[in-house]
Amino acid sequence: MLDNLPLLVFGAHPDDIEFGCGGVVASEARADRPVHMIVCSRGEAGTMGTPEIREAESRNAATILGANLEFIDLDGDAHLRSSAENAISLAGAIRRIRPGLVIAPSLSENQHPDHSQLGRLVRDAARLARYGGISELRPLPPHSIKSLFYYALSPEAEPRDLSAILYDVSDEETLGKWLAAMEAHSSQVRAKPYVEMQLTRARLRGLSAGIGHAIALFPADPIVIDRLEPVAAGGRCF
Amino acid sequence: MLDNLPLLVFGAHPDDIEFGCGGVVASEARADRPVHMIVCSRGEAGTMGTPEIREAESRNAATILGANLEFIDLDGDAHLRSSAENAISLAGAIRRIRPGLVIAPSLSENQHPDHSQLGRLVRDAARLARYGGISELRPLPPHSIKSLFYYALSPEAEPRDLSAILYDVSDEETLGKWLAAMEAHSSQVRAKPYVEMQLTRARLRGLSAGIGHAIALFPADPIVIDRLEPVAAGGRCF
Amino acid sequence: MLDNLPLLVFGAHPDDIEFGCGGVVASEARADRPVHMIVCSRGEAGTMGTPEIREAESRNAATILGANLEFIDLDGDAHLRSSAENAISLAGAIRRIRPGLVIAPSLSENQHPDHSQLGRLVRDAARLARYGGISELRPLPPHSIKSLFYYALSPEAEPRDLSAILYDVSDEETLGKWLAAMEAHSSQVRAKPYVEMQLTRARLRGLSAGIGHAIALFPADPIVIDRLEPVAAGGRCF
Amino acid sequence: MLDNLPLLVFGAHPDDIEFGCGGVVASEARADRPVHMIVCSRGEAGTMGTPEIREAESRNAATILGANLEFIDLDGDAHLRSSAENAISLAGAIRRIRPGLVIAPSLSENQHPDHSQLGRLVRDAARLARYGGISELRPLPPHSIKSLFYYALSPEAEPRDLSAILYDVSDEETLGKWLAAMEAHSSQVRAKPYVEMQLTRARLRGLSAGIGHAIALFPADPIVIDRLEPVAAGGRCF
Amino acid sequence: MLDNLPLLVFGAHPDDIEFGCGGVVASEARADRPVHMIVCSRGEAGTMGTPEIREAESRNAATILGANLEFIDLDGDAHLRSSAENAISLAGAIRRIRPGLVIAPSLSENQHPDHSQLGRLVRDAARLARYGGISELRPLPPHSIKSLFYYALSPEAEPRDLSAILYDVSDEETLGKWLAAMEAHSSQVRAKPYVEMQLTRARLRGLSAGIGHAIALFPADPIVIDRLEPVAAGGRCF
Amino acid sequence: MLDNLPLLVFGAHPDDIEFGCGGVVASEARADRPVHMIVCSRGEAGTMGTPEIREAESRNAATILGANLEFIDLDGDAHLRSSAENAISLAGAIRRIRPGLVIAPSLSENQHPDHSQLGRLVRDAARLARYGGISELRPLPPHSIKSLFYYALSPEAEPRDLSAILYDVSDEETLGKWLAAMEAHSSQVRAKPYVEMQLTRARLRGLSAGIGHAIALFPADPIVIDRLEPVAAGGRCF
Repeated sequence: MLDNLPLLVFGAHPDDIEFGCGGVVASEARADRPVHMIVCSRGEAGTMGTPEIREAESRNAATILGANLEFIDLDGDAHLRSSAENAISLAGAIRRIRPGLVIAPSLSENQHPDHSQLGRLVRDAARLARYGGISELRPLPPHSIKSLFYYALSPEAEPRDLSAILYDVSDEETLGKWLAAMEAHSSQVRAKPYVEMQLTRARLRGLSAGIGHAIALFPADPIVIDRLEPVAAGGRCF
Repeated sequence: MLDNLPLLVFGAHPDDIEFGCGGVVASEARADRPVHMIVCSRGEAGTMGTPEIREAESRNAATILGANLEFIDLDGDAHLRSSAENAISLAGAIRRIRPGLVIAPSLSENQHPDHSQLGRLVRDAARLARYGGISELRPLPPHSIKSLFYYALSPEAEPRDLSAILYDVSDEETLGKWLAAMEAHSSQVRAKPYVEMQLTRARLRGLSAGIGHAIALFPADPIVIDRLEPVAAGGRCF
Repeated sequence: MLDNLPLLVFGAHPDDIEFGCGGVVASEARADRPVHMIVCSRGEAGTMGTPEIREAESRNAATILGANLEFIDLDGDAHLRSSAENAISLAGAIRRIRPGLVIAPSLSENQHPDHSQLGRLVRDAARLARYGGISELRPLPPHSIKSLFYYALSPEAEPRDLSAILYDVSDEETLGKWLAAMEAHSSQVRAKPYVEMQLTRARLRGLSAGIGHAIALFPADPIVIDRLEPVAAGGRCF
Repeated sequence: MLDNLPLLVFGAHPDDIEFGCGGVVASEARADRPVHMIVCSRGEAGTMGTPEIREAESRNAATILGANLEFIDLDGDAHLRSSAENAISLAGAIRRIRPGLVIAPSLSENQHPDHSQLGRLVRDAARLARYGGISELRPLPPHSIKSLFYYALSPEAEPRDLSAILYDVSDEETLGKWLAAMEAHSSQVRAKPYVEMQLTRARLRGLSAGIGHAIALFPADPIVIDRLEPVAAGGRCF
Repeated sequence: MLDNLPLLVFGAHPDDIEFGCGGVVASEARADRPVHMIVCSRGEAGTMGTPEIREAESRNAATILGANLEFIDLDGDAHLRSSAENAISLAGAIRRIRPGLVIAPSLSENQHPDHSQLGRLVRDAARLARYGGISELRPLPPHSIKSLFYYALSPEAEPRDLSAILYDVSDEETLGKWLAAMEAHSSQVRAKPYVEMQLTRARLRGLSAGIGHAIALFPADPIVIDRLEPVAAGGRCF
Repeated sequence: MLDNLPLLVFGAHPDDIEFGCGGVVASEARADRPVHMIVCSRGEAGTMGTPEIREAESRNAATILGANLEFIDLDGDAHLRSSAENAISLAGAIRRIRPGLVIAPSLSENQHPDHSQLGRLVRDAARLARYGGISELRPLPPHSIKSLFYYALSPEAEPRDLSAILYDVSDEETLGKWLAAMEAHSSQVRAKPYVEMQLTRARLRGLSAGIGHAIALFPADPIVIDRLEPVAAGGRCF
């Protein structure tokens, strides 16, 4: 169904995509799907690293993952808000890139406020991209994505009202690229055990499912199937 | 992953499978998957039809759907309870049939009590089938299913805490077989607009997803994938 | 309790009220309650129809339903946000119209962003209308509504945390007016099966309740009664 | 809709109905509706009072409230379980009394286990009473109630997933009868501040709604209306 | 763990802290913890009292409670919105006061809109206070609080998704100070039974826990312990 | 409040307590609190190990943890059901041991059915232990515990409706004893990575809280405090 439509992934800060779902990006890119990453700040409000350093780390990580990288500055790090203007701006990006699938940070609020604000913006943008009369978006033709998934940057950010889908990232090369992409953000990984946090989460999901490592994604809407085969593997081992 | 492992579907009464997920059964059977249906009463507590009539209607419906049919009498219609004995009995059936996927009625309680009692029994049975030391189950070797899905016999029975997966049953032949299998329960469909109820539900799901008709299934555990492609179709059209 | 206080219904776009709860409007108006509809954009971001066409369709639909219609332009279609200014503006309308009951779109977010933004605005406006010191609202005297209900434009927009109340719209004339009011939005109904969607929803609710068609409303606060009689009809037929 | 069909209320212990919803019983009885109370144990597992004393207290309270009282012994106090036999037994009572409305303890589990077990039994009984083929229930003809409501014996027992309806019991005579009926259980009210607990709950609900005292009921299924008037009073004062 | 770090409490209006958690403030201050209260409007949109009167009432109440009081004007009463600017402004206050624990109004939305907007602002501010690169906050050094708790101004405002912790305010002097602090807002308590409302809530919580009066707090994040002793008292008496 | 009242912990199978909350047991025992463990089967339905082997492993683990161990056989492994008889039997144990705090498996159902059945039994038993008139429990005098906590044997078993409390088990000796107690179940740990599963869970909780390892407990009822100090450490590091 996706044919070779691009995968579009959003992050609020230079390292969010890598930490939250970098293994998914690596795996899809390895399967020759075009992956486009949009980062909405330079991380300028963080404690460590300058905007220049962080942008460079992002570009390095994108190369490792095999994805394109684009910065779209909105309100600035720690200032992001879910305004109509921002939603329309991201809808323009969706019309331009015309992805089949979009991945955004989850809407759970009790963490860095930029994360859930961006999740809301992307959710709204995916919808606004379909409406033909929005003047700011002309002349880009409307575009309907196939599906929207959320990723979570910490256990607390996992949606409570959506069932998880586990993406298996146990493949050695995929896992290696994910790890390398996280460590490419060297200004950050020195400050806190971010990498251990994400690998522990992925290992716990993997153990639960009887596999190696897995990243949870949360579909915003019901998935449509016409055979049980593709969804037949259930992740409960204990 | 399923290869050609059978699909095993449970119903508390002779018409539950047909009304709740008959279109899924028809579609899987058409794709040459062996489908085995287990019905746990003869419907003897219902207002309409004798046990003999209802059994005959079930056999007729099974033929239409292309599935095997087996009756396993437990406590009797309107008397079903989630006892350890019943769970072990159904675990024995799972070990015997060795399905890849199991479908059971949902656990939502505010409807015919047999439905949620059977859902609990099947959920527990799928787990007990794995444990090697249960003496009643010897000498059948342990068996692990791949995944457990729930179906709902009415909108109120749809689980509130699990995300739906929509199974597209719009194909003309699939839809025709589903309709015929429901109408095979002629003692029942004269009493209430059961068929209209299920077709209306399926059409509403289909409209929401931009397709024809769809049946919602609810996976008991996270689904494991290693590519986004199979889960890329999202069911939101409005 | 309501005596003949008006019913005030809000919509974000010219067709929202008609599709979401047009049958309720028709029924209340037929019972000689004054019904006032406020629409907060001209639908100018939609794919089909011009603002002029859509306003005309709305006026036509209002006539069919027997309701007054007023446009209050806020931020524009696809641009609506839950600002204090907008909430106070709608509070002013509430003070002016002095309704007993208010109906607004639900707060569920995963759909057109304007819908939930307007729901929040109306909820806040109903509260702000009571406070005497808001300078922008002078000299309109404060007003307390009796109750606030939400309607949902799609199944996904139905609140998960509020119990539904089913409004029976099976009466032939009521149903006819509802259908005619939806079809009055002819620029829209050509684009998607909006009418079938709403009638299918209403029929499913009606089937569940053992009646013809019904529209679900969701009260924002507990309902107060002093006899069981008026709430004695429960909507469970299957 | 109810005409003069009886109201049937269930309690697990001799004082449950009085403490949980005695004011509702008093009010309905004062409006000349026949009220039938069924108590399913003699309170023999409680710390205070003998079965004989407690039965006498119940009969006294029933007289005060203006309701009939019947004891149906099931498994005994502190031994009640949701078996099919018990559900069918209570279904028989429903067929015999043929109520329009039924009130039962809520299903919330974290309290005296008999309460939620009885709630489940009544919920199932109300459904089984409709099915024509249950041999134990012959020759009593099937009966469909109009609606099922739950009451809660403590704040923790209030259902989280159902919206409350507030029954106004502020009328002086109603409140007086409720108070007297609670105090009729003199063996119990000496042990703990049960009466203060219930009056405090009712006053808090009343304050929230801008009235005197109110008892929350929780409808098991959606309420069906055909005018907004009867549900127009919303209980939010602060 | 807290040593003698200050407690910081936020209110949207001059009386919110006193009504919502004044007993907690009184108790902590009596135990010699520095308590700092920040009020974000002068209550100028309320029906009763001028900004000058309300500020004076607040100062009086703060003296009674033994707490410091500071006004930080944001968008004005009834105009408060959860903007990045406001969150950063409050983050600055957190960096300046450097509290161990912060208490804020809950996020539940169906009440005065300022309450939940402020709750969101404080939650985000507590997080932003930690990030070193936010230019508006320089040169105040980053600060991490130990924990964030929410209070609720009415039963409807209590979070549904967080477990309550009950703070025992039964001590006579604590209760007396709380009562006096509420009554210090004499312009308000004449208008509605606010004091009775809060004492009824606290008495109901107290009765449930087998103590006198208690105020519920809701921790935003899991509490960390290293012995069970401090959390061993469970609040269930009925 | 607990003085030196014992801690009583329940497990359905010989290794449940150790895997689910062994670190809590070790820590409390090290602080000289008497800890009593009750195991309700010999694990005879498991795939690995005989009842004799498993009992010996349990006794070994109990010695490592510093706790007493008692077996109370109920319905047998994989046969446990929440009957009144079993609840009363466990209530008798509570009256005999007279604990201050009780820890039981969580009520979440989608795992080994014995776990949630036992959770329900213990919850009910803690309540029944208080009621003076239960004849089977005489002459043991009634006993009220202070608080009931749940533990979860897997991430899926963590209650969704109760907030977690994190018990820090990072202390080297505590962690070592926990690990040794898990590995004492050598018949089990050879079969699946149970130990890695639990350590990964505890490390993830620890990372989230900025400490080493932590075990989540879930209080059945609100905790009562009279100072904020003991609950001031909040577990959010990212």
